[in-house]
Amino acid sequence: MTVPTLWLDDISVGDRFRTETYELGAEAIIDFANAWDPQPFHLSEDLARDTFFQGLAASGWHTAAITMRLLVTSGLPLATGIIGASIDLAWPTPTRPGDRLHVDLEVTDVRASRSDPSRGFITAVYDTVNQHGEIRQHTTARLLAFSRP
Amino acid sequence: MTVPTLWLDDISVGDRFRTETYELGAEAIIDFANAWDPQPFHLSEDLARDTFFQGLAASGWHTAAITMRLLVTSGLPLATGIIGASIDLAWPTPTRPGDRLHVDLEVTDVRASRSDPSRGFITAVYDTVNQHGEIRQHTTARLLAFSRP
Repeated sequence: MTVPTLWLDDISVGDRFRTETYELGAEAIIDFANAWDPQPFHLSEDLARDTFFQGLAASGWHTAAITMRLLVTSGLPLATGIIGASIDLAWPTPTRPGDRLHVDLEVTDVRASRSDPSRGFITAVYDTVNQHGEIRQHTTARLLAFSRP
Repeated sequence: MTVPTLWLDDISVGDRFRTETYELGAEAIIDFANAWDPQPFHLSEDLARDTFFQGLAASGWHTAAITMRLLVTSGLPLATGIIGASIDLAWPTPTRPGDRLHVDLEVTDVRASRSDPSRGFITAVYDTVNQHGEIRQHTTARLLAFSRP
């Protein structure tokens, strides 16, 4: 686990971070779906076969949760944590059993708050990618960050 | 659990859906955070006290997962399931222990695909709201839907 040490002052446009890797299998996909997104295409290979996904696919929220876990444990070591203000998400392709995912992140904007210069917002654009380079999730996040005290 | 029966043809701008309710406590917040978003403000009341959140707050991804569960089990009975193409999310206030959440959804756009009239996109705007009317998540979702075969 990366020790979070970076303040708003330490982050610049163009900074890049790459996380470690997270592998998921069919059982993990089904467990997550039973808890949070119990739809046929996330619950079993048999039920998924004749759906839009043509086979078992992870819930997009599972991919989003894995993405967050990767960023928190190995991706973006902000001293005060990763606090999302707003997020845009897209899932260009479904996450599949056997995917080994990592996240590639780039900072595209950094600005201090006008009303309170002790805080500001970082815009980060990141892709959640499998071992074949297939993009499973594309995210733009506006994150709250704080200046070094 | 609502039986999903609605096709693209059955959905109109202005249609509204309201889900059942989901209550979460501190233990559920901490369990989810340990799995997916292990940051101090999501892991214990003690660790959270001196953070931006000033007390235990659910991961935004936990609120998103609850929102999806509510929509799938009681919210939006699309015949072919709820398939998100892209999503915009914001968390105006943090979800707290003791929140009883439901989702209020309104359809704001329905359009058939030009290239393939058997499918189309529904835009839905929805709020995840607690028992005091506090909005915990605001979502705009572009959902893939299919015409009645």
